[in-house]
Amino acid sequence: MNLLVVGSVAFDNIETRAGEGKRLLGGSATYFSLAAAPFCTSRIVAVVGEDFTPEYEEVLTNRDIDIEGLQRAKGLTFAWGGTYSENFETRETQFTDLNVFADFSPELPASYRDSELVFLGNIQPSLQMDVLRQIDNPGLVAADTMNLWINDNREELLEVIRNIDILFINDEEALLLTGPYPLLKAASMLLEMGPDRVVIKRGEHGAFLFGAGKNFYVPAFPLDDIVDPTGAGDSFAGAFMGYLAQEEELNDESFRKAMITASAVASYTCEGFGVEKLKRLTPEKVLSRSEEIQDLTSI
Amino acid sequence: MNLLVVGSVAFDNIETRAGEGKRLLGGSATYFSLAAAPFCTSRIVAVVGEDFTPEYEEVLTNRDIDIEGLQRAKGLTFAWGGTYSENFETRETQFTDLNVFADFSPELPASYRDSELVFLGNIQPSLQMDVLRQIDNPGLVAADTMNLWINDNREELLEVIRNIDILFINDEEALLLTGPYPLLKAASMLLEMGPDRVVIKRGEHGAFLFGAGKNFYVPAFPLDDIVDPTGAGDSFAGAFMGYLAQEEELNDESFRKAMITASAVASYTCEGFGVEKLKRLTPEKVLSRSEEIQDLTSI
Repeated sequence: MNLLVVGSVAFDNIETRAGEGKRLLGGSATYFSLAAAPFCTSRIVAVVGEDFTPEYEEVLTNRDIDIEGLQRAKGLTFAWGGTYSENFETRETQFTDLNVFADFSPELPASYRDSELVFLGNIQPSLQMDVLRQIDNPGLVAADTMNLWINDNREELLEVIRNIDILFINDEEALLLTGPYPLLKAASMLLEMGPDRVVIKRGEHGAFLFGAGKNFYVPAFPLDDIVDPTGAGDSFAGAFMGYLAQEEELNDESFRKAMITASAVASYTCEGFGVEKLKRLTPEKVLSRSEEIQDLTSI
Repeated sequence: MNLLVVGSVAFDNIETRAGEGKRLLGGSATYFSLAAAPFCTSRIVAVVGEDFTPEYEEVLTNRDIDIEGLQRAKGLTFAWGGTYSENFETRETQFTDLNVFADFSPELPASYRDSELVFLGNIQPSLQMDVLRQIDNPGLVAADTMNLWINDNREELLEVIRNIDILFINDEEALLLTGPYPLLKAASMLLEMGPDRVVIKRGEHGAFLFGAGKNFYVPAFPLDDIVDPTGAGDSFAGAFMGYLAQEEELNDESFRKAMITASAVASYTCEGFGVEKLKRLTPEKVLSRSEEIQDLTSI
């Protein structure tokens, strides 16, 4: 099945205790599509500026990512800078220059309209709906969101949530949407809003899958050393959807295997700066770590 | 195998969004021994005051807990009061009246000296060592600790850690001991301090077992409603050690099964005020929840 992602492509300045990197290729659509790359090609819908040179483009095309939907606009590419606290518990944003992303209006090439798996990355909810409307007959739609939209665009976000099959959300955002409840109760409330499944991401504490099928939990793989956790959540979603895209048929077990695959790929992301570790990630490496993750909870 | 625990017996005033309870039987030795009760009897070493009436005593003796080592002192029993924030993220201590616990000097009855499994609950490290010295030939010794001793009695605590087989510690305390590192690295550093195994408790985020055998992780059971998390950590340790006490022979797998059992019992503790749910906990109920916990991570 083919996979489409809409989201951001950005230049990131990142500082962690392991070092720093400037103008690293980042953004949700970048991490997502590279994380899906060991399993399937994906179609990317995003916008970049005139400073997006061929070297950056090649990071995507080298992994067979379809960039026909990557719009070129006058101006500069979205740029973001952040500094992580010593033990990665907090992150301070140094700057957010939306640049061409501020006027992003996603328009899908005709060749993208038959997309079967769709991931609406974390952008303004009304833009997520715009993308969804341009797809003829999507088979499975997932979306991510963030506190900004939960606070400022709640009604539009609720419309998105009514129209998707899987919601990806982190635990803090989940409680911001539902109110302060135990996670299981918050999950039930999110499921009542529309989706069949909810994936609640908890960073270093793993992730839960609630909804159709049984409840499932995957731990985060414990790392000896963390280099840069930027994009781990987008990588999680990308590997999850990428895994599903290569399945012949989707059943409950497929989603559980997708969770383990997602945790494996997200852990690789954290082991390098930016997308460094994702660039050359192979299905074999992912499988090997997936087995290690399963072994963590097996008696 | 017989099991000994040294720790506190206390009266707790607890307030959560689910309600409040006053003069509830609490304390680390209480939660520990009641959590072990579905699996084995335990011997308790603690101190209570003149206000410790037969009704409280019966909560322990009804579960066949051996209270010969429960000292009676002039004065009042240790009392503590705490209020949990709405979603149980923080806890504010209202009062801590050490009372007879301030002069606690653990003295073991002669009948306790042959104890095989020993749990040194969270008390002053030098008192933990005093208890250990009074046991002839312990087969397996575990200990818990807290930030107070890590900060104020580090050298004595390190002596305890050198002399035990299993350290129980929560993730914040672990990093307070080792410095701010990824959990896996902190675990290696703790193992270098002496114990064969380290159990890192993460509250609602489950627990890790590091050391001899493979690394193992057990999630916390997601609850629809949390009533009172007081004593969940002590219950975890009690069920862990209780499970081991009933095993014919201890191998690596025993410790992994003990982790799952511990998570199951700790989740029951959170479903009632104080020790309410532990009072009547049966091996069947624990087994049933243990299976649910295993099912959470099985494909």
